[in-house]
Amino acid sequence: MTASKNEDTQIEAILREATVDPDVISFAGGFPATETFPRAQLLSAAEAALSKEGVATSLQYAWPEGKEGLLEWVVERLARRDIHVTSEDVIITSGAQQALSLSADAILGDGARVLVDPYCYSGALDVFRARGAALTTRFEEATCAYQMPGVTNPRGDAATEQNLGQLLALNGPIIADEAYAELRFDGRAPVPLRALLPTRVFLIGSVSKTLCPGFRLGWLVPPEGVAKTLREDKRLDDLQASTFSQAMLLHWLRHNDYGAHLRRSRRLYRARAHCMTSHLHELFPEWLVHVPEGGFSVLVDTQSKVGELELLDAGRRHGVVYDPGSSFRSLRGPEDNLMLRLCFSNLSTPLITRGLARLRRAWQSLERMT
Amino acid sequence: MTASKNEDTQIEAILREATVDPDVISFAGGFPATETFPRAQLLSAAEAALSKEGVATSLQYAWPEGKEGLLEWVVERLARRDIHVTSEDVIITSGAQQALSLSADAILGDGARVLVDPYCYSGALDVFRARGAALTTRFEEATCAYQMPGVTNPRGDAATEQNLGQLLALNGPIIADEAYAELRFDGRAPVPLRALLPTRVFLIGSVSKTLCPGFRLGWLVPPEGVAKTLREDKRLDDLQASTFSQAMLLHWLRHNDYGAHLRRSRRLYRARAHCMTSHLHELFPEWLVHVPEGGFSVLVDTQSKVGELELLDAGRRHGVVYDPGSSFRSLRGPEDNLMLRLCFSNLSTPLITRGLARLRRAWQSLERMT
Repeated sequence: MTASKNEDTQIEAILREATVDPDVISFAGGFPATETFPRAQLLSAAEAALSKEGVATSLQYAWPEGKEGLLEWVVERLARRDIHVTSEDVIITSGAQQALSLSADAILGDGARVLVDPYCYSGALDVFRARGAALTTRFEEATCAYQMPGVTNPRGDAATEQNLGQLLALNGPIIADEAYAELRFDGRAPVPLRALLPTRVFLIGSVSKTLCPGFRLGWLVPPEGVAKTLREDKRLDDLQASTFSQAMLLHWLRHNDYGAHLRRSRRLYRARAHCMTSHLHELFPEWLVHVPEGGFSVLVDTQSKVGELELLDAGRRHGVVYDPGSSFRSLRGPEDNLMLRLCFSNLSTPLITRGLARLRRAWQSLERMT
Repeated sequence: MTASKNEDTQIEAILREATVDPDVISFAGGFPATETFPRAQLLSAAEAALSKEGVATSLQYAWPEGKEGLLEWVVERLARRDIHVTSEDVIITSGAQQALSLSADAILGDGARVLVDPYCYSGALDVFRARGAALTTRFEEATCAYQMPGVTNPRGDAATEQNLGQLLALNGPIIADEAYAELRFDGRAPVPLRALLPTRVFLIGSVSKTLCPGFRLGWLVPPEGVAKTLREDKRLDDLQASTFSQAMLLHWLRHNDYGAHLRRSRRLYRARAHCMTSHLHELFPEWLVHVPEGGFSVLVDTQSKVGELELLDAGRRHGVVYDPGSSFRSLRGPEDNLMLRLCFSNLSTPLITRGLARLRRAWQSLERMT
């Protein structure tokens, strides 16, 4: 086991332990706000799914691509952004992660070099690494790309728009992961890459960030003509996404206003992001804070070489944890600054304030030691 | 596209069309009996999962291995069969299919030859084929094995016990798929392969056949020392199995009697199996009928060379469909007899009787033509 693997194991142990300690304030995990879950509405959906007529589909097996009503809902939402597909182009997946994993299997072969952001969703980096692909942050080296249009994770900005010209020129497949895209604070829709490049883009979406992760429901719109093969791959993976979750989601969408739910969620996350960034600026003037335009997290560069485990351990002792930046780093190097991903999404503003004060004390405890 | 691929596409089209036609009696699909789904009990479970305290876990993200309470439940059930593992050896998967897919990825490399039954679960055959593995029905050629202890699909017999000596001598990894094992009509537990061969057996279980498929929940107990790697593979696949399904299942298991539910289900399926086999013997004296000891289906050998599509198409016109045998055939050959998998599980005995009468007329319509 390498030193780095060993450190990863210790980091996971600290985060796992913190999860079950109610006294710890956690900026880790990318969790949506629990209070946004529409409990009463979802109970109505569960009642419908568990009705005598409901269970014949909601608790049984189904076709791998998912419920027709959900496929149509995805098609309609995409059409508003001028992405014109049919329900045969869509596959309901077990979360965005499965959509990503299926896409990676479809495009990664020998010699693949995936264009990624310097700081990028760790679940994507790990999928590419596990398949033996090389990662690069340089357009001219890439054979394919992973992008998060609208809102990136962990930076929360709109990287794709800046790079659109280069992406159009890439001439390889592109995974466009829109897991966070509907949670831009300004509500602006992301660049419709799938419409601009219909033969090259794997479009990924999800309700994990916008409704709840517990259903494990997302979708994949592969490039034109590829859906049939990927539907078969999906079947071999897990037959189909949870039909019970699908039935509940479909009922919820039909009886509630998804747009209004999104607007309320955006306002909440914007307020929390603002609380976090303003406190970060005040408490840690020496840190570089990437002010997010959406999403759940703030990426900070401490501009120091303090050890990753060292600060996390100090944080844990002071009652605060977060996601260390290294798991989001595409290309690790020994000279990297210590970076942190701090999620504001599932904490009230008083808890954000208190958690950052704890982090400040943890940070100072290390400064005193050096 | 080969002729066989084209035929598969036509078969799928017929079955898909039949699904939405209420006048068709379907022996296809391996569906558990809808009336065994404990609707009222599951609604209580949904209410608990959607309570204020419940949603903080049931609708959120969780660790890839699954809920601790479910892991412990699997551990306790296996202990009764002298399979002694800890919760760290268990992974809750998105159905048995994902457990199978993860196991296949772990064991199949260059030159793998998987021992399978001559008629075998098609979802397993397809997983192995998609990974480039060769299939064999001869022990002496195999480098690894896929077995369904207790109850095989589609034959419904206990193949493993007959072959136990040879399996023990195989000296390669074994996937022991117990998806149907708790549904032997006599209630007898399957051979505990994971206890006999703890360093070689990937044990797979599921509640899809015994409670409901809609939750997409199963489990994988990999060989000793392998769980940690597979947990990471599971995370990259889909992060975790539906946490909402997990919360509902755990609540249901804690407040209801799984053993009693199994006993009721076994009695129901035994009665339906008996109805089907006795009618088959009477209506089709020329067919070879494999009388099942458990599970959901009967495999029949028509002892004729009638074309697969021909009979399915005639059946569809007479208002009855089923799963053609070729998808369960490990090694296809041009001289194979026409085989059928007929599922009795989700049909009342009057519907089984009526469906077989329709099948008889469809069969006779072909005989008249020849």
